[in-house]
Order: sequence, then structure tokens, then C-alpha cells
Amino acid sequence: MPKLTETDVAREADDDGVCGPVEILRFGDSGGLTQFGANLEILPPGSRSAQKHWHAAEDEFLYVLEGTLILHEGDAEIAIAAGEAAAFPAGRAVGHCLENLGAAPARYLIVGTRAAQDVVTYADLDRVLTVDRAARTHVWTDAAGRPAASAYAMD
Amino acid sequence: MPKLTETDVAREADDDGVCGPVEILRFGDSGGLTQFGANLEILPPGSRSAQKHWHAAEDEFLYVLEGTLILHEGDAEIAIAAGEAAAFPAGRAVGHCLENLGAAPARYLIVGTRAAQDVVTYADLDRVLTVDRAARTHVWTDAAGRPAASAYAMD
Repeated sequence: MPKLTETDVAREADDDGVCGPVEILRFGDSGGLTQFGANLEILPPGSRSAQKHWHAAEDEFLYVLEGTLILHEGDAEIAIAAGEAAAFPAGRAVGHCLENLGAAPARYLIVGTRAAQDVVTYADLDRVLTVDRAARTHVWTDAAGRPAASAYAMD
Repeated sequence: MPKLTETDVAREADDDGVCGPVEILRFGDSGGLTQFGANLEILPPGSRSAQKHWHAAEDEFLYVLEGTLILHEGDAEIAIAAGEAAAFPAGRAVGHCLENLGAAPARYLIVGTRAAQDVVTYADLDRVLTVDRAARTHVWTDAAGRPAASAYAMD
């Protein structure tokens, strides 16, 4: 049965210690999809979705269901309200993340390709994450390629 | 600028003469995405999203934003309301489509991988569509592989 509701998909409460808490409802994974992720994320006031980053190999798309989010893209800040969306083509070398500056939790759908290999660049933090899904490896370096700590353990 | 609103994405009014009219807002294409399609579709009362079909190579995901849709899957009929979703992994050999039996237009987001090659099976109609995106070919046959008319010109 392909139907999925919020009560029957896998839920994950995440908090990386830097960006604040976020709740992730894994619709795509729970429905058996492997080619892209399709999550509903609930971002409380004050939280960010991630450190600012961009993907070399994976397209990303988000659609806001509830609330208004600030999209940080490079040095720009752009408000995205319910019913609005954003798209990040693979290789567009501008770091982005979402932040909830509102008073209530914001909800958005986020879809991202699952490429076999990807390189994620966190330019502001001098960090690069190289991902190989087949080998199940995640390797953090600085921009020069030297081993470095995760962008999520720097504060 | 990655932000996209309903007023600035490409819109397409489609009517294949079989399934009834549908309006398609091409968020992903308008945002420069190529790895998956990400459309908002508006299905008027009485319309269906497509002939019943399944994809050999492409994952599909939909999330209902407004209204209630009937998901036809094989011989089953499943109601999917706003805030609910459905996932169709590539290769799951059960034909599906959506139908709006309500009194108001229904709105849903639909995401599908853009595989290099795909085979789409319309089992109820004895039709198979073989797609090669690089070669830009769409070839209709019957299940036995003989040339045949499109599943959308049969009524």
C-alpha cells in the first residue's frame, strides 16, 4: 500500500548541537524510495535546517507547508512563506540553509537526489564533506583536502 | 535566486482528451532542476492525473496539499487527504493514478526521478511506453512489443 500518513512514517528527532532541534518525517524512505529523499521537516523557532552548504551532485527542492522561513543563500536572506518553494540545482556553488525566525514551528517538504557520490561544500566553515553512498563513507576535510572535524562539531 | 512562487513558475494547462483537464506548475524545471521533476498539479473535479501506469526505472512521490484524491492502485481505491502522501518505488508493478471525486479542485505536489531510460506500463490498456531521454524518443507498443497507439488516444 503506497499511502503514507504522518503517523506511520519513520520520525527522527535530530539536534546536531549547532543548528538547534529539528523533527524529520521520512516519507520517502518509509515508502521504499531510494532514488531521492522526500522528508517533511518541522523546524522550531530559532532552529536552522543545516549549516550553510551546497551539493556538487544532488539537486534539492523544498516547498513550505506552514510558517515562514528565512532562506540564507550566500549573504542574502530571503523570506519563503507557506505555498512558496526553492530549488537548488546540483553544482550551484552558493551555500544555503533555512532558519525559522518566527514564533511557531515551520513545516516544509524537502526533496534531494541520492547520488552515488557527492561533495558537499561548507564554504563559510572551510569544510568539505565527501560522500560515497555505495561505500557508505562520509569524509570531512578542509577546503585544501586536509582531514578536518565535522561542520557540525565546531562550536 | 532559488525562491519560486506560483506566479513565477512555468504553468501548463493540459488535457489529453481522456483523463480530463489538469493544470501543472513546473516548480522544479523553473528552478533549474534536472534530476527529478517537482510539479504542483491542480486537478479539477472529475479529472484523473493519468491513465493507470507504473514506472520500471523512476521513483514517484506525491503529497496532497488541498482536497482529497482517490488513488487507484491495481483494483484498490484509497482516499488520500491533504497532509497525506503516497510513494511508488521504481519497479513496483502495480498501475496507479489519481482521481478527483470531490467538488473542488485538488492540489498536490508530485516528484519523479528523471531516469535516462524508463519503461512505463499501462497494463489495463495493453500499452507500454519506452522512454529514452538522451535520444528524446517515446515509443508506444503493446505488451507484446508491437507498435501501438498512445494510451492517451484510445477512447
